[in-house]
Amino acid sequence: MVCVRCGRTFGHLKSALWCPDCGTEGILDLQYDYDLIGKVLTPARLAQAAVRTLWRYLPLLPVRGSKRVAPLDVGGTPLYDARALAQTVGMDQVWLKDESRNPTGSIEDRATAIAVARALEDNYSILTCGATGNAALSSAALAAAAGLHATLFVSREASDGDVAQLMLFGPDVFIVEGGYEDAVRLSLRSAEEYGWYNRNKAINPYLVEGEKTVAFELNEQTHGATPDCIVVPVAEGSAIAAIWKGYCEMRQLGWVRDLPKMIGVQAESAAAVYTAWKEGNDPVATQPQTLAESLAVGAPRDWRKAVAAVRDSRGMMVTVSDREILQAMHLLGERSGIIVEPGSAATLAGLNALLRSRQLPRTLSAALVIAGGGLRHPGAALEAAGKARTVPPDFEQVRTTLQRSLARTPF
Amino acid sequence: MVCVRCGRTFGHLKSALWCPDCGTEGILDLQYDYDLIGKVLTPARLAQAAVRTLWRYLPLLPVRGSKRVAPLDVGGTPLYDARALAQTVGMDQVWLKDESRNPTGSIEDRATAIAVARALEDNYSILTCGATGNAALSSAALAAAAGLHATLFVSREASDGDVAQLMLFGPDVFIVEGGYEDAVRLSLRSAEEYGWYNRNKAINPYLVEGEKTVAFELNEQTHGATPDCIVVPVAEGSAIAAIWKGYCEMRQLGWVRDLPKMIGVQAESAAAVYTAWKEGNDPVATQPQTLAESLAVGAPRDWRKAVAAVRDSRGMMVTVSDREILQAMHLLGERSGIIVEPGSAATLAGLNALLRSRQLPRTLSAALVIAGGGLRHPGAALEAAGKARTVPPDFEQVRTTLQRSLARTPF
Repeated sequence: MVCVRCGRTFGHLKSALWCPDCGTEGILDLQYDYDLIGKVLTPARLAQAAVRTLWRYLPLLPVRGSKRVAPLDVGGTPLYDARALAQTVGMDQVWLKDESRNPTGSIEDRATAIAVARALEDNYSILTCGATGNAALSSAALAAAAGLHATLFVSREASDGDVAQLMLFGPDVFIVEGGYEDAVRLSLRSAEEYGWYNRNKAINPYLVEGEKTVAFELNEQTHGATPDCIVVPVAEGSAIAAIWKGYCEMRQLGWVRDLPKMIGVQAESAAAVYTAWKEGNDPVATQPQTLAESLAVGAPRDWRKAVAAVRDSRGMMVTVSDREILQAMHLLGERSGIIVEPGSAATLAGLNALLRSRQLPRTLSAALVIAGGGLRHPGAALEAAGKARTVPPDFEQVRTTLQRSLARTPF
Repeated sequence: MVCVRCGRTFGHLKSALWCPDCGTEGILDLQYDYDLIGKVLTPARLAQAAVRTLWRYLPLLPVRGSKRVAPLDVGGTPLYDARALAQTVGMDQVWLKDESRNPTGSIEDRATAIAVARALEDNYSILTCGATGNAALSSAALAAAAGLHATLFVSREASDGDVAQLMLFGPDVFIVEGGYEDAVRLSLRSAEEYGWYNRNKAINPYLVEGEKTVAFELNEQTHGATPDCIVVPVAEGSAIAAIWKGYCEMRQLGWVRDLPKMIGVQAESAAAVYTAWKEGNDPVATQPQTLAESLAVGAPRDWRKAVAAVRDSRGMMVTVSDREILQAMHLLGERSGIIVEPGSAATLAGLNALLRSRQLPRTLSAALVIAGGGLRHPGAALEAAGKARTVPPDFEQVRTTLQRSLARTPF
């Protein structure tokens, strides 16, 4: 383990999840014995592997065995060659990595799978998380599936319906009269105080290891052709760092020759990582005002890893408005048939912005990481797509309406 | 093709989707050349097959090639051995077939995949469907993914948010001032009048062929051990008939020796198929009053196939109340970590009812078909699980609250 702030190296730190010198600012980074792993895990062996979940890459994950892992199938999500979408944005190739196909509909399940496996290995019985939507839902569900108890701290922006979906899994839920950062803080303090397993992705360095499997899958699904850029929504900054790490590990293992440019997308009002990347300073906390719930992080904790991923990969960052996000959500639906959460539609919005401003050439190939699905977000759909027309239950009325629209549209 | 009403046999009927003698009451049933199929498709070959979607079973599907199929990955959903749940209901083995892992979160995607493939093969450019939630969402998404236009008729019970999710995919949507049956009727009429592809599962006999692949997957996932019973939510009646058909075909092919008992579950207020099964009469239309949207079909069209599946398999049917459904929804969350729609929670509620009334012995194994996921149903979650407590952003308050609940609960 290496501290991303001071660079100090440690062995396996069972009790502490961050650098003892730097405190919670000193997020750790896990390193493996890649020579050893390269002997047991090869692309040829992977091609024969029957396991389709993220445990397919077990030697590259911080989990001892595959016996005591969460019983839901996490990972193995589709990669789509989105030709109609590519045509619309004017690129040669656009891939969509559809993380909505995880058990609770987001990439968070990959992180939670590791959390649950580690919690079981280290004999924890309670897991805690401070979260907005996806991470809380994932923690509640996967903990329940594994027979762990979960104590969740949710910020007050969460709707009654969202909270009720958590409650279905039987955790303890605290709605915190405050923002996301307050929820995370209470969760960290509780983990310390009561010895609960800390499932906070931007702090616990084990969790992003689950998310790096997106890179391994991408590489198998593109048959080793690294996309020129990988576009990732950035909130805490963990996912973009994790996917970059996955590609770096694959290069170290000799599985890939080319590395992708990492492109991070943030919402205009929650752009602390963007600013840190652009100006080279530590990030300044912001007050997010975006409908993209999953991007609404004012004071990201994992910004160092995220900025490093963008810099080291010679990538870039971009911010997008809610209006651009809603347009992208609609475009993804119409052109690819995928319903995405606003925060993930931001990837397409960001790509479009970079293409239009000629910061990216259209001849590149891009993989968009659809980090979360849209089924839980009918409100955003309503803003993006509007209402439908109403007709009486009478075919002649349907006919009249259709003739009117036929006069306007091509079909 | 065989008419399920008069028994007349037909060749491939390109233009008509029902029996020319019986009209829309004469739903057809597709038959294949099983001797021929048995030569190309064997369990041993399947075990080697790389395709994980429902096209894995292409020779048993009414589609010519796999080239022109919808580009989203449909099928290949997980089967979970739900041990904690089995323990709770007191059975030896309970499997969950999790259809929520399809692209739009339900088994409807299997039917739509066939619809889209057939529409493309027969050069249709518009597809139509009359539907409540899942079928409409599936039709909108998979049509968009395949570059087809969809015209959808939705009953007025659909919420603005649900309709907006459809609109994201760019179809024509008509909200019909009437119920589900009115929506289906307008869709059928439009299909006839304008020559659109008819994606109405209870009429178009091709569509259930997609759903029978649930049986094929189940059999591979249980390594050929047929569950004693398969519990299926019954609305139109198509899914239970389809899964039964899948098992019958596997027996004909020599892939299985044992057939399962098919257990159909309906909501108390939408129990037309149940009544037809119980009393041996034609079903009488009802006015559904259930929160289980996907079960709210008053006048099911595919009841003949459904009743035959239950009878021929020596299965049974059962009805459940909304209260039982909500309890089951909560139990599935707590015990298996899966968030299900109310209509699919009905399977567990029905199983429980049959176990308690000793109509089913606890020594049997059961597979519950979780036909649809719960992410789109926060309202039902709220009714099932209630609200969470609120705390100020202060750890001492959390501590006090936890100490109070510690006094009451075991952890």
